[in-house]
Amino acid sequence: MSDPKTVPPLRVGVIGLGIAGAAMVPALCDHPRAVLAGAADVNAELRRRFTSDKGLPAVDNALDLIGRDEVDAVYIATPHQFHLEHAVEAARRGKHIIVEKPMALSLDDCDVMEQEARRNNVVMIVGHTHGFDLPVLRMRQATTSGEYGRLSMLSMWNYTNFLYRPRREEELDTSKGGGVLFNQLPHQVDVARTIADSPVRSVRASTAILDPRRPTEGSYTVFIDFESGVTASLVYSGYDHFDSDELHQWISSSGKPKKPQHGKARKAWEGLADAKDELELRQREYGYGGAFLAGESRYQPHFGLMVVSCQNADLKIAPDGIAVYSDEGMTTLPLVGGQDGRTNVIDELCAAVLDDVRPLHDGAFARETLRVCLAVHESARQRREISIADLQRRHVSQ
Amino acid sequence: MSDPKTVPPLRVGVIGLGIAGAAMVPALCDHPRAVLAGAADVNAELRRRFTSDKGLPAVDNALDLIGRDEVDAVYIATPHQFHLEHAVEAARRGKHIIVEKPMALSLDDCDVMEQEARRNNVVMIVGHTHGFDLPVLRMRQATTSGEYGRLSMLSMWNYTNFLYRPRREEELDTSKGGGVLFNQLPHQVDVARTIADSPVRSVRASTAILDPRRPTEGSYTVFIDFESGVTASLVYSGYDHFDSDELHQWISSSGKPKKPQHGKARKAWEGLADAKDELELRQREYGYGGAFLAGESRYQPHFGLMVVSCQNADLKIAPDGIAVYSDEGMTTLPLVGGQDGRTNVIDELCAAVLDDVRPLHDGAFARETLRVCLAVHESARQRREISIADLQRRHVSQ
Repeated sequence: MSDPKTVPPLRVGVIGLGIAGAAMVPALCDHPRAVLAGAADVNAELRRRFTSDKGLPAVDNALDLIGRDEVDAVYIATPHQFHLEHAVEAARRGKHIIVEKPMALSLDDCDVMEQEARRNNVVMIVGHTHGFDLPVLRMRQATTSGEYGRLSMLSMWNYTNFLYRPRREEELDTSKGGGVLFNQLPHQVDVARTIADSPVRSVRASTAILDPRRPTEGSYTVFIDFESGVTASLVYSGYDHFDSDELHQWISSSGKPKKPQHGKARKAWEGLADAKDELELRQREYGYGGAFLAGESRYQPHFGLMVVSCQNADLKIAPDGIAVYSDEGMTTLPLVGGQDGRTNVIDELCAAVLDDVRPLHDGAFARETLRVCLAVHESARQRREISIADLQRRHVSQ
Repeated sequence: MSDPKTVPPLRVGVIGLGIAGAAMVPALCDHPRAVLAGAADVNAELRRRFTSDKGLPAVDNALDLIGRDEVDAVYIATPHQFHLEHAVEAARRGKHIIVEKPMALSLDDCDVMEQEARRNNVVMIVGHTHGFDLPVLRMRQATTSGEYGRLSMLSMWNYTNFLYRPRREEELDTSKGGGVLFNQLPHQVDVARTIADSPVRSVRASTAILDPRRPTEGSYTVFIDFESGVTASLVYSGYDHFDSDELHQWISSSGKPKKPQHGKARKAWEGLADAKDELELRQREYGYGGAFLAGESRYQPHFGLMVVSCQNADLKIAPDGIAVYSDEGMTTLPLVGGQDGRTNVIDELCAAVLDDVRPLHDGAFARETLRVCLAVHESARQRREISIADLQRRHVSQ
């Protein structure tokens, strides 16, 4: 690593002050190798909150932020349909890139983004996903080193209220990249791929749209066969019924203590007058400075329950580290720090830009995650196993 | 139902006083419509314990028990390879049958057993499996009535010490019906089928043999596609690492409070001198009168974690009933009684024999469960989805 005293920190601008951008700001402010360098958002109130809070400029046009000389890199947290345009523009201006998941709405768009990044010699990281969480990275270290023998299977459950959080219209339209398949599945796929460290060979999946008022996939079951022979099973439901944090000591996915609030998100949404009301609530509560992000992340982040089974031990994310159930019994592998996986996103960017370390969660990695998500959708539609190599689909709307 | 005051109770003999037979004896003694009518076992010590305890005859030959006039029905809890012979003999003597899972080692054997039962006009029930548990039967009622809207997916996890409990040699040989595929998977398949109430269309599965000293499958991941469109995902590991009862308030599958004992079964097994030692421990601890079955079942039985997702609610087995996570929030549906699913096995037999009620868990049902287990094994071997209709395999050793 370069000496942090002599290498100037990376100046990062945040494009989009919705929930993702709002969550990245504190991680940037706290990071030893990065500094926050401004923001862009179309919403005046979010810009006002940001500037008043940070004393930094907030512009209404992403391209203006990208063009600023004081910006070395941008975090693109705009709606999915803008990722392509903003990433290409950033690359052409020589700015390094963190782009939110899903990377783009099609494999072709991913290809263009990758080409532009390569051509302009900029680094592109895709995240945050829970594949950056410290316990996940530590599990990867364990499985790739064979610390507990060979990896055999990963099992993941996540039951949330995802579908009833306030949404923009396109977030409820699968053909525009809405629903859990392109917004929650990438977390589980990234976690599984980060730990399994093997190409995905095939998937078998089912999906469900259970509430016609939210006409996009809200739940799924996925069986992933990795080329290495490892299996991952992923279960997700965003219907605000069972909440799997009940089985994780009521600690939220961002590592914050929480209280049971079964059905509350649905009821809050049902109390809204119309889509305009919903959008306003979304910005007020989930955008920069909103209540949703309040609270301190005191525990390790997670994405629901996960058990990683190796030959000589099962590993499970625990509030303060990793629970290791080995031949010798149960112990906890404590992890210090890492309460915010976004710090690891910035780490990967800084290591790539400043130290020339090849990032794990780069464009190629994220493109493959999108391919797996497309294959999951295809498997559910065709009701059969889909070989990744044979997948014809390239776009979420196909 | 016939008047219990005028209809004499069913006199049931128990063939095999191992763990299954030992567990059935108290259920028979407590049942209002059945009486215990003797036992058979090849082991003199188990026979001695039984007779001394119950004051009833215990013979060393199954056929002698089957032939007794005082026996109306038999519970066949002998090693799997004897199910065919004992069931056929019972049917020919006009005795009703409860036969342990797996029903037999091949679909052809199942067919013979069914034919003989039909020809001799006797009832045949296959169990106990956790498909008889009261919460499971209550969930079936909910899903088949549409109480919470249409059923969408079932997710099941079970992490146990199965592989290191003391075993007979054939229990560790998959080709003889050993391992988790033919001894634990039938529980999950029966539970899923009892609730889903639909034929299985296809399965995609992986299995693992992680300890060469126990050379049979010890873990698996299964994706089941039901014809109705319902999906079940089943995860099991018997490697004595993670114990999923940790997430069920440390209540055992038989509804008893338990303490964490990670790795204890493996260590106990590793301390044994040889296979003879193991067999002796098996009989002493797991057979009739052994320590394994001691303790009171104070809570509902279960087979690991299960979440059943319907359109309007998720259902989860809770210690005292069913946790219902509906649109209105979380409530518990209390269940009274039912702490032993074996009572429901006897219920089904008595209802069929005495009241002419068609049993749910009959030979045809159990044959289909065996077919699903064979398909799971086949899917893992061929590493592809297996359509149940196209399955060629008919025997565990094929």
